[in-house]
Amino acid sequence: MHVVVPFGADDPKTRLSPVLDADERREFAEAMLADVLDALDAFGSEPTVVADAPVDCAAPVTVDERPLSAAVNARLDDTDDTKAVVMADLALATPAALARLFDTEGDVVLAPGRGGGTNAVVARHPEFRVDYHGVSVRDHREAVRATGASLATVDSFRLATDVDEPADLVEVLLHAEGRAPAWLREAGFAVTATDGRVDVDR
Amino acid sequence: MHVVVPFGADDPKTRLSPVLDADERREFAEAMLADVLDALDAFGSEPTVVADAPVDCAAPVTVDERPLSAAVNARLDDTDDTKAVVMADLALATPAALARLFDTEGDVVLAPGRGGGTNAVVARHPEFRVDYHGVSVRDHREAVRATGASLATVDSFRLATDVDEPADLVEVLLHAEGRAPAWLREAGFAVTATDGRVDVDR
Repeated sequence: MHVVVPFGADDPKTRLSPVLDADERREFAEAMLADVLDALDAFGSEPTVVADAPVDCAAPVTVDERPLSAAVNARLDDTDDTKAVVMADLALATPAALARLFDTEGDVVLAPGRGGGTNAVVARHPEFRVDYHGVSVRDHREAVRATGASLATVDSFRLATDVDEPADLVEVLLHAEGRAPAWLREAGFAVTATDGRVDVDR
Repeated sequence: MHVVVPFGADDPKTRLSPVLDADERREFAEAMLADVLDALDAFGSEPTVVADAPVDCAAPVTVDERPLSAAVNARLDDTDDTKAVVMADLALATPAALARLFDTEGDVVLAPGRGGGTNAVVARHPEFRVDYHGVSVRDHREAVRATGASLATVDSFRLATDVDEPADLVEVLLHAEGRAPAWLREAGFAVTATDGRVDVDR
Protein backbone atom coordinates (compact mmCIF):
# COMPACT_ATOMS: atom_id res chain seq x y z
CA MET A 1 0.00 0.00 0.00
CA HIS A 2 1.19 3.48 -0.89
CA VAL A 3 0.85 5.75 2.12
CA VAL A 4 1.11 9.51 1.66
CA VAL A 5 1.91 11.55 4.77
CA PRO A 6 1.37 15.27 4.12
CA PHE A 7 3.53 17.55 6.25
CA GLY A 8 3.40 21.33 6.46
CA ALA A 9 7.10 22.06 6.78
CA ASP A 10 6.94 25.76 6.00
CA ASP A 11 5.97 27.51 9.28
CA PRO A 12 4.23 24.47 10.77
CA LYS A 13 1.44 24.46 13.36
CA THR A 14 0.80 28.20 13.46
CA ARG A 15 -2.22 27.73 15.75
CA LEU A 16 0.20 26.58 18.46
CA SER A 17 1.87 30.02 18.38
CA PRO A 18 0.28 31.07 21.72
CA VAL A 19 2.38 28.42 23.48
CA LEU A 20 5.31 27.59 21.17
CA ASP A 21 7.70 29.83 19.20
CA ALA A 22 8.51 29.11 15.54
CA ASP A 23 11.53 26.88 16.24
CA GLU A 24 9.62 24.94 18.87
CA ARG A 25 6.64 24.43 16.56
CA ARG A 26 8.98 23.04 13.94
CA GLU A 27 10.64 20.67 16.42
CA PHE A 28 7.32 19.51 17.85
CA ALA A 29 5.78 19.01 14.37
CA GLU A 30 8.80 16.91 13.36
CA ALA A 31 8.45 14.85 16.56
CA MET A 32 4.82 14.11 15.68
CA LEU A 33 5.79 13.22 12.10
CA ALA A 34 8.45 10.82 13.42
CA ASP A 35 5.86 9.17 15.71
CA VAL A 36 3.41 8.74 12.81
CA LEU A 37 6.16 7.23 10.63
CA ASP A 38 7.08 4.89 13.49
CA ALA A 39 3.47 3.72 13.82
CA LEU A 40 3.29 3.18 10.04
CA ASP A 41 6.57 1.27 10.11
CA ALA A 42 4.76 -1.66 11.75
CA PHE A 43 3.00 -2.27 8.42
CA GLY A 44 5.98 -2.15 6.06
CA SER A 45 3.93 0.42 4.20
CA GLU A 46 6.79 2.52 2.80
CA PRO A 47 5.24 5.94 3.30
CA THR A 48 6.13 9.01 1.28
CA VAL A 49 6.14 12.35 3.06
CA VAL A 50 4.73 15.13 0.88
CA ALA A 51 5.90 18.47 2.22
CA ASP A 52 5.85 22.08 1.11
CA ALA A 53 9.51 22.47 2.08
CA PRO A 54 12.38 20.07 2.80
CA VAL A 55 12.17 18.09 6.05
CA ASP A 56 14.54 15.64 7.64
CA CYS A 57 12.74 12.41 8.53
CA ALA A 58 12.91 8.62 8.29
CA ALA A 59 10.95 8.38 5.00
CA PRO A 60 11.43 9.62 1.43
CA VAL A 61 10.26 13.23 1.05
CA THR A 62 8.67 14.77 -2.04
CA VAL A 63 8.61 18.56 -1.93
CA ASP A 64 5.49 19.97 -3.58
CA GLU A 65 4.63 23.60 -3.03
CA ARG A 66 1.05 23.37 -4.29
CA PRO A 67 -1.85 23.54 -1.82
CA LEU A 68 -2.36 20.41 0.29
CA SER A 69 -5.13 18.75 -1.73
CA ALA A 70 -3.36 19.22 -5.07
CA ALA A 71 -0.06 17.92 -3.69
CA VAL A 72 -1.74 14.80 -2.23
CA ASN A 73 -3.82 14.15 -5.34
CA ALA A 74 -0.71 14.29 -7.52
CA ARG A 75 0.52 11.25 -5.57
CA LEU A 76 -2.85 9.50 -5.82
CA ASP A 77 -2.66 9.96 -9.60
CA ASP A 78 0.54 7.90 -9.67
CA THR A 79 -1.10 4.54 -9.03
CA ASP A 80 -4.33 2.61 -9.28
CA ASP A 81 -3.35 0.39 -6.34
CA THR A 82 -4.68 0.82 -2.82
CA LYS A 83 -3.36 4.01 -1.30
CA ALA A 84 -3.73 5.76 2.00
CA VAL A 85 -3.29 9.29 3.29
CA VAL A 86 -2.38 9.71 6.95
CA MET A 87 -1.88 13.16 8.45
CA ALA A 88 1.48 13.91 10.05
CA ASP A 89 0.01 15.44 13.22
CA LEU A 90 -1.78 12.33 14.49
CA ALA A 91 0.40 12.15 17.57
CA LEU A 92 -1.90 9.58 19.19
CA ALA A 93 -1.73 7.15 16.25
CA THR A 94 -0.67 3.63 17.20
CA PRO A 95 -0.10 0.52 15.07
CA ALA A 96 -3.37 -0.86 16.52
CA ALA A 97 -5.37 2.21 15.46
CA LEU A 98 -3.81 2.17 11.99
CA ALA A 99 -4.48 -1.57 11.70
CA ARG A 100 -8.19 -0.89 12.21
CA LEU A 101 -8.01 1.74 9.45
CA PHE A 102 -6.13 -0.51 7.01
CA ASP A 103 -8.21 -3.62 7.83
CA THR A 104 -11.62 -1.99 7.40
CA GLU A 105 -13.29 -3.12 4.20
CA GLY A 106 -14.69 -0.61 1.73
CA ASP A 107 -13.71 1.12 -1.49
CA VAL A 108 -13.00 4.19 0.61
CA VAL A 109 -12.40 4.18 4.36
CA LEU A 110 -12.42 7.49 6.22
CA ALA A 111 -11.08 8.32 9.66
CA PRO A 112 -12.91 11.55 10.59
CA GLY A 113 -11.01 14.23 12.43
CA ARG A 114 -12.50 16.49 15.03
CA GLY A 115 -14.14 19.58 13.60
CA GLY A 116 -15.16 18.15 10.26
CA GLY A 117 -11.72 17.11 9.07
CA THR A 118 -10.52 13.91 7.43
CA ASN A 119 -7.46 12.67 9.26
CA ALA A 120 -6.82 9.46 7.36
CA VAL A 121 -8.15 7.74 4.25
CA VAL A 122 -7.71 4.38 2.59
CA ALA A 123 -8.74 4.48 -1.07
CA ARG A 124 -9.18 1.24 -2.99
CA HIS A 125 -11.14 3.02 -5.70
CA PRO A 126 -9.03 4.54 -8.50
CA GLU A 127 -11.13 7.70 -8.84
CA PHE A 128 -10.96 8.87 -5.21
CA ARG A 129 -9.27 12.22 -4.73
CA VAL A 130 -8.98 14.34 -1.58
CA ASP A 131 -10.35 17.83 -0.99
CA TYR A 132 -9.34 19.18 2.38
CA HIS A 133 -10.99 22.55 1.91
CA GLY A 134 -14.14 23.20 3.94
CA VAL A 135 -15.96 20.42 5.81
CA SER A 136 -13.82 17.73 4.26
CA VAL A 137 -15.36 14.68 5.92
CA ARG A 138 -18.78 15.64 4.61
CA ASP A 139 -17.40 16.46 1.15
CA HIS A 140 -15.46 13.19 0.98
CA ARG A 141 -18.57 11.19 1.95
CA GLU A 142 -20.61 12.90 -0.74
CA ALA A 143 -17.90 12.43 -3.35
CA VAL A 144 -17.63 8.71 -2.58
CA ARG A 145 -21.40 8.25 -2.75
CA ALA A 146 -21.50 10.13 -6.05
CA THR A 147 -19.12 7.62 -7.62
CA GLY A 148 -21.15 4.67 -6.32
CA ALA A 149 -18.15 3.34 -4.39
CA SER A 150 -18.67 1.76 -0.96
CA LEU A 151 -17.84 3.91 2.05
CA ALA A 152 -16.71 2.88 5.54
CA THR A 153 -15.69 4.85 8.60
CA VAL A 154 -13.22 4.04 11.35
CA ASP A 155 -14.34 5.08 14.81
CA SER A 156 -11.04 6.02 16.46
CA PHE A 157 -10.31 8.72 19.01
CA ARG A 158 -6.60 8.31 18.26
CA LEU A 159 -7.08 8.95 14.54
CA ALA A 160 -9.66 11.70 15.17
CA THR A 161 -7.18 13.71 17.22
CA ASP A 162 -5.03 15.92 15.03
CA VAL A 163 -2.92 18.35 17.00
CA ASP A 164 -3.54 21.94 16.00
CA GLU A 165 -4.33 23.99 19.08
CA PRO A 166 -2.97 24.36 22.61
CA ALA A 167 -5.92 22.37 24.05
CA ASP A 168 -4.90 19.41 21.87
CA LEU A 169 -1.64 19.13 23.80
CA VAL A 170 -3.68 17.67 26.68
CA GLU A 171 -4.45 14.66 24.48
CA VAL A 172 -0.79 14.23 23.50
CA LEU A 173 0.35 14.29 27.13
CA LEU A 174 -2.40 11.93 28.33
CA HIS A 175 -2.63 9.42 25.49
CA ALA A 176 0.41 9.51 23.21
CA GLU A 177 3.70 7.67 23.52
CA GLY A 178 6.86 8.47 21.66
CA ARG A 179 8.75 11.59 20.75
CA ALA A 180 5.90 14.12 20.77
CA PRO A 181 4.83 13.73 24.42
CA ALA A 182 8.48 13.39 25.43
CA TRP A 183 9.25 16.66 23.63
CA LEU A 184 6.38 18.42 25.43
CA ARG A 185 7.47 17.16 28.84
CA GLU A 186 11.06 18.16 28.12
CA ALA A 187 9.76 21.64 27.21
CA GLY A 188 8.02 21.83 30.58
CA PHE A 189 4.43 21.11 29.65
CA ALA A 190 2.16 19.27 32.07
CA VAL A 191 -1.56 18.57 32.34
CA THR A 192 -3.28 20.53 35.07
CA ALA A 193 -6.81 20.65 36.44
CA THR A 194 -8.15 23.87 37.87
CA ASP A 195 -11.79 24.57 38.74
CA GLY A 196 -12.89 21.43 36.94
CA ARG A 197 -11.21 22.44 33.65
CA VAL A 198 -8.29 20.43 32.31
CA ASP A 199 -5.55 22.32 30.49
CA VAL A 200 -1.82 22.35 29.82
CA ASP A 201 0.56 24.46 31.79
CA ARG A 202 4.20 25.28 31.08
CA MET B 1 -25.06 -5.68 33.19
CA HIS B 2 -26.08 -2.71 35.32
CA VAL B 3 -25.60 0.50 33.33
CA VAL B 4 -25.67 3.82 35.13
CA VAL B 5 -26.33 6.90 33.00
CA PRO B 6 -25.63 10.09 34.96
CA PHE B 7 -27.64 13.09 33.83
CA GLY B 8 -27.32 16.67 35.02
CA ALA B 9 -31.00 17.65 35.02
CA ASP B 10 -30.64 20.78 37.11
CA ASP B 11 -29.57 23.58 34.71
CA PRO B 12 -27.97 21.22 32.16
CA LYS B 13 -25.15 22.02 29.73
CA THR B 14 -24.32 25.48 31.02
CA ARG B 15 -21.29 25.74 28.69
CA LEU B 16 -23.75 25.80 25.77
CA SER B 17 -25.24 29.05 27.12
CA PRO B 18 -23.58 31.16 24.40
CA VAL B 19 -25.78 29.46 21.79
CA LEU B 20 -28.78 27.99 23.68
CA ASP B 21 -31.07 29.45 26.33
CA ALA B 22 -31.96 27.49 29.48
CA ASP B 23 -35.08 25.83 28.05
CA GLU B 24 -33.24 24.88 24.86
CA ARG B 25 -30.32 23.44 26.79
CA ARG B 26 -32.73 21.29 28.74
CA GLU B 27 -34.49 20.06 25.57
CA PHE B 28 -31.22 19.36 23.79
CA ALA B 29 -29.76 17.55 26.82
CA GLU B 30 -32.87 15.36 27.04
CA ALA B 31 -32.60 14.61 23.29
CA MET B 32 -29.02 13.42 23.81
CA LEU B 33 -30.07 11.33 26.81
CA ALA B 34 -32.83 9.72 24.73
CA ASP B 35 -30.31 8.89 21.98
CA VAL B 36 -27.91 7.32 24.48
CA LEU B 37 -30.74 5.25 26.00
CA ASP B 38 -31.75 4.16 22.49
CA ALA B 39 -28.21 3.03 21.72
CA LEU B 40 -28.09 1.13 25.04
CA ASP B 41 -31.44 -0.46 24.30
CA ALA B 42 -29.77 -2.67 21.68
CA PHE B 43 -28.06 -4.54 24.54
CA GLY B 44 -31.06 -5.15 26.79
CA SER B 45 -28.89 -3.58 29.47
CA GLU B 46 -31.65 -1.98 31.57
CA PRO B 47 -29.96 1.31 32.34
CA THR B 48 -30.70 3.46 35.35
CA VAL B 49 -30.53 7.23 34.92
CA VAL B 50 -29.03 8.93 37.95
CA ALA B 51 -30.02 12.58 37.94
CA ASP B 52 -29.78 15.53 40.30
CA ALA B 53 -33.43 16.43 39.59
CA PRO B 54 -36.38 14.60 38.04
CA VAL B 55 -36.24 13.94 34.31
CA ASP B 56 -38.73 12.35 31.94
CA CYS B 57 -37.07 9.60 29.93
CA ALA B 58 -37.42 5.99 28.75
CA ALA B 59 -35.51 4.47 31.70
CA PRO B 60 -35.96 4.36 35.47
CA VAL B 61 -34.62 7.50 37.14
CA THR B 62 -32.98 7.74 40.56
CA VAL B 63 -32.75 11.28 41.86
CA ASP B 64 -29.58 11.82 43.86
CA GLU B 65 -28.53 15.36 44.69
CA ARG B 66 -25.02 14.51 45.74
CA PRO B 67 -22.08 15.44 43.49
CA LEU B 68 -21.70 13.29 40.37
CA SER B 69 -19.02 10.88 41.62
CA ALA B 70 -20.81 10.17 44.92
CA ALA B 71 -24.14 9.62 43.17
CA VAL B 72 -22.61 7.18 40.68
CA ASN B 73 -20.58 5.35 43.30
CA ALA B 74 -23.70 4.82 45.40
CA ARG B 75 -25.07 2.77 42.47
CA LEU B 76 -21.77 0.88 42.07
CA ASP B 77 -21.97 -0.04 45.75
CA ASP B 78 -25.27 -1.83 45.09
CA THR B 79 -23.80 -4.79 43.24
CA ASP B 80 -20.66 -6.86 42.76
CA ASP B 81 -21.73 -7.78 39.22
CA THR B 82 -20.37 -6.16 36.10
CA LYS B 83 -21.51 -2.59 35.84
CA ALA B 84 -21.02 0.24 33.39
CA VAL B 85 -21.27 4.01 33.51
CA VAL B 86 -22.12 5.79 30.26
CA MET B 87 -22.45 9.56 30.13
CA ALA B 88 -25.76 11.01 28.94
CA ASP B 89 -24.17 13.52 26.55
CA LEU B 90 -22.53 11.02 24.21
CA ALA B 91 -24.69 12.08 21.29
CA LEU B 92 -22.49 10.17 18.83
CA ALA B 93 -22.81 6.84 20.66
CA THR B 94 -24.03 3.97 18.51
CA PRO B 95 -24.76 0.33 19.36
CA ALA B 96 -21.55 -0.57 17.48
CA ALA B 97 -19.42 1.79 19.56
CA LEU B 98 -21.01 0.56 22.79
CA ALA B 99 -20.52 -3.05 21.68
CA ARG B 100 -16.79 -2.40 21.43
CA LEU B 101 -16.89 -0.98 24.97
CA PHE B 102 -18.87 -3.87 26.42
CA ASP B 103 -16.96 -6.57 24.50
CA THR B 104 -13.47 -5.38 25.47
CA GLU B 105 -11.89 -7.67 28.02
CA GLY B 106 -10.39 -6.32 31.23
CA ASP B 107 -11.31 -5.83 34.86
CA VAL B 108 -11.86 -2.18 34.05
CA VAL B 109 -12.42 -0.81 30.55
CA LEU B 110 -12.21 2.96 30.03
CA ALA B 111 -13.48 5.06 27.14
CA PRO B 112 -11.50 8.31 27.46
CA GLY B 113 -13.23 11.57 26.74
CA ARG B 114 -11.60 14.55 25.14
CA GLY B 115 -9.84 16.83 27.58
CA GLY B 116 -8.93 14.22 30.16
CA GLY B 117 -12.41 12.98 30.90
CA THR B 118 -13.80 9.47 31.29
CA ASN B 119 -16.90 9.13 29.14
CA ALA B 120 -17.70 5.48 29.75
CA VAL B 121 -16.48 2.69 31.99
CA VAL B 122 -17.10 -1.02 32.32
CA ALA B 123 -16.11 -2.33 35.75
CA ARG B 124 -15.84 -6.05 36.34
CA HIS B 125 -13.82 -5.48 39.50
CA PRO B 126 -15.88 -4.98 42.68
CA GLU B 127 -13.61 -2.29 44.13
CA PHE B 128 -13.69 0.12 41.19
CA ARG B 129 -15.22 3.51 41.98
CA VAL B 130 -15.36 6.64 39.84
CA ASP B 131 -13.82 10.02 40.54
CA TYR B 132 -14.76 12.58 37.93
CA HIS B 133 -12.96 15.45 39.59
CA GLY B 134 -9.76 16.63 37.89
CA VAL B 135 -8.05 14.65 35.13
CA SER B 136 -10.33 11.69 35.58
CA VAL B 137 -8.93 9.38 32.91
CA ARG B 138 -5.48 9.64 34.47
CA ASP B 139 -6.85 9.20 37.97
CA HIS B 140 -8.94 6.19 36.96
CA ARG B 141 -5.94 4.54 35.29
CA GLU B 142 -3.83 5.05 38.40
CA ALA B 143 -6.59 3.79 40.68
CA VAL B 144 -7.04 0.61 38.62
CA ARG B 145 -3.30 -0.05 38.56
CA ALA B 146 -3.12 0.48 42.33
CA THR B 147 -5.66 -2.29 42.90
CA GLY B 148 -3.75 -4.68 40.59
CA ALA B 149 -6.80 -5.06 38.34
CA SER B 150 -6.32 -5.30 34.56
CA LEU B 151 -7.02 -2.16 32.54
CA ALA B 152 -8.15 -1.79 28.94
CA THR B 153 -9.05 1.22 26.83
CA VAL B 154 -11.54 1.58 23.99
CA ASP B 155 -10.33 3.77 21.14
CA SER B 156 -13.57 5.41 19.97
CA PHE B 157 -14.14 8.89 18.60
CA ARG B 158 -17.87 8.41 19.19
CA LEU B 159 -17.40 7.63 22.87
CA ALA B 160 -14.68 10.29 23.28
CA THR B 161 -17.04 13.03 22.12
CA ASP B 162 -19.09 14.39 24.99
CA VAL B 163 -21.07 17.47 24.06
CA ASP B 164 -20.26 20.40 26.32
CA GLU B 165 -19.35 23.40 24.20
CA PRO B 166 -20.67 25.09 21.05
CA ALA B 167 -17.81 23.64 18.96
CA ASP B 168 -18.99 20.13 19.91
CA LEU B 169 -22.24 20.74 18.05
CA VAL B 170 -20.25 20.33 14.81
CA GLU B 171 -19.66 16.70 15.74
CA VAL B 172 -23.34 16.12 16.53
CA LEU B 173 -24.43 17.57 13.19
CA LEU B 174 -21.81 15.68 11.17
CA HIS B 175 -21.71 12.29 12.89
CA ALA B 176 -24.78 11.67 15.08
CA GLU B 177 -28.13 10.25 14.15
CA GLY B 178 -31.30 10.47 16.18
CA ARG B 179 -33.02 13.13 18.20
CA ALA B 180 -30.05 15.35 19.10
CA PRO B 181 -28.95 16.26 15.53
CA ALA B 182 -32.62 16.51 14.50
CA TRP B 183 -33.23 18.92 17.39
CA LEU B 184 -30.26 21.07 16.34
CA ARG B 185 -31.38 21.19 12.70
CA GLU B 186 -34.92 22.05 13.77
CA ALA B 187 -33.47 24.88 15.88
CA GLY B 188 -31.69 26.22 12.82
CA PHE B 189 -28.13 25.02 13.38
CA ALA B 190 -25.94 24.09 10.43
CA VAL B 191 -22.27 23.36 9.90
CA THR B 192 -20.42 26.10 8.07
CA ALA B 193 -16.88 26.52 6.79
CA THR B 194 -15.37 29.97 6.63
CA ASP B 195 -11.69 30.76 6.05
CA GLY B 196 -10.76 27.14 6.54
CA ARG B 197 -12.42 26.94 9.99
CA VAL B 198 -15.45 24.74 10.54
CA ASP B 199 -18.10 25.97 12.95
CA VAL B 200 -21.84 25.94 13.61
CA ASP B 201 -24.11 28.74 12.56
CA ARG B 202 -27.69 29.40 13.56
